[in-house]
Amino acid sequence: MEGTFITFEGGEGAGKSTVLQAVGQRLLKEGHDVVMTREPGGIDIAEKIRQVILDPTHTSMDGRTEALLYAAARRQHLVEKVIPALEEGKIVLCDRFLDSSLAYQGHARGLGMEEVLRINEFAIEGYMPHLTLFFDISPERGLERIDQNKGREQNRLDLEHIKFHHTVYEAYQWLLHKFPDRIQSIDADHSVEIVIEDAFQKVSSAI
Amino acid sequence: MEGTFITFEGGEGAGKSTVLQAVGQRLLKEGHDVVMTREPGGIDIAEKIRQVILDPTHTSMDGRTEALLYAAARRQHLVEKVIPALEEGKIVLCDRFLDSSLAYQGHARGLGMEEVLRINEFAIEGYMPHLTLFFDISPERGLERIDQNKGREQNRLDLEHIKFHHTVYEAYQWLLHKFPDRIQSIDADHSVEIVIEDAFQKVSSAI
Repeated sequence: MEGTFITFEGGEGAGKSTVLQAVGQRLLKEGHDVVMTREPGGIDIAEKIRQVILDPTHTSMDGRTEALLYAAARRQHLVEKVIPALEEGKIVLCDRFLDSSLAYQGHARGLGMEEVLRINEFAIEGYMPHLTLFFDISPERGLERIDQNKGREQNRLDLEHIKFHHTVYEAYQWLLHKFPDRIQSIDADHSVEIVIEDAFQKVSSAI
Repeated sequence: MEGTFITFEGGEGAGKSTVLQAVGQRLLKEGHDVVMTREPGGIDIAEKIRQVILDPTHTSMDGRTEALLYAAARRQHLVEKVIPALEEGKIVLCDRFLDSSLAYQGHARGLGMEEVLRINEFAIEGYMPHLTLFFDISPERGLERIDQNKGREQNRLDLEHIKFHHTVYEAYQWLLHKFPDRIQSIDADHSVEIVIEDAFQKVSSAI
């Protein structure tokens, strides 16, 4: 593959989607060919799979069924959108990818990171990101930000909620430790301008 | 698990679905608790997944996406229908299961049996059939039967078609060799009465 595949990862409220757009725009202005995407990325089959996952009537959805559906949607998005762009030499910035499944479903939902990795290896067939940016912010700060955005009261966050996001955070720390060459950490507890600058520098070094 | 999980496998036209119903009815008459099923088995989530797989507009469906979707539908059918029946001590007769994915997608579609096995292991989480009946008939004879049923001309079967079914047949032979304790072969090139009797005897020995 000719292009560069870069994924943006982290918990809620880390600002990664905003930063991805800003970094992408800056790369475009510099004349790079950039694709900014996130699963299911407008891919018809992946959207349909996502509808099955998110259908509120599917209360009996098993955790492993869900993980397999996410892997299926990932596969289709990869094949129809990411791989063709990489083959054309483009820079692909993707909001969440493999590591989100490992952190959320593998660790936080308790399916096991190794097991979730295994089905995702089948799905991604070696198309690992060249670089993954992990937006590091404490779960409390991240959720605080989301609440401020939505104008919600901070006390709406119950203990269970915080615990879950701590587990996600733990998983990302573990991944950072496990894949030091691929994943780079960004201190996301700064102003958005500083975080964008940091992300842009790291992306620039990789392309 | 308390019950007995028995799967029926084979190529097209082997008669396994007919035999499954006949064997199930006979077991019911003998007073056994029997569940006769096939994926997606009326399970809402599994039916929805199957709709995504079979949607004729999804021409861009990747082979791995499809395999993950089949594994997801299998998981949900297993969790909602098969496991509860086994836990109640019932005999579950299931028309196609894991081996179909290995033969059709793993081998005939070229994804690799080991790889397809891996994602299915995630899906079935150790719920392997106690017994699998393989209905052994040559692809030519099987397809001939289907054609007779449909009143089609035999020459409608093109070479590609026959080749594909030979590959499926090869895969089942390999599975039979690999899992001699689990899979038993039934000579399906006999009258349906003889095949039912053979299947009934083998099922009876397993329960």
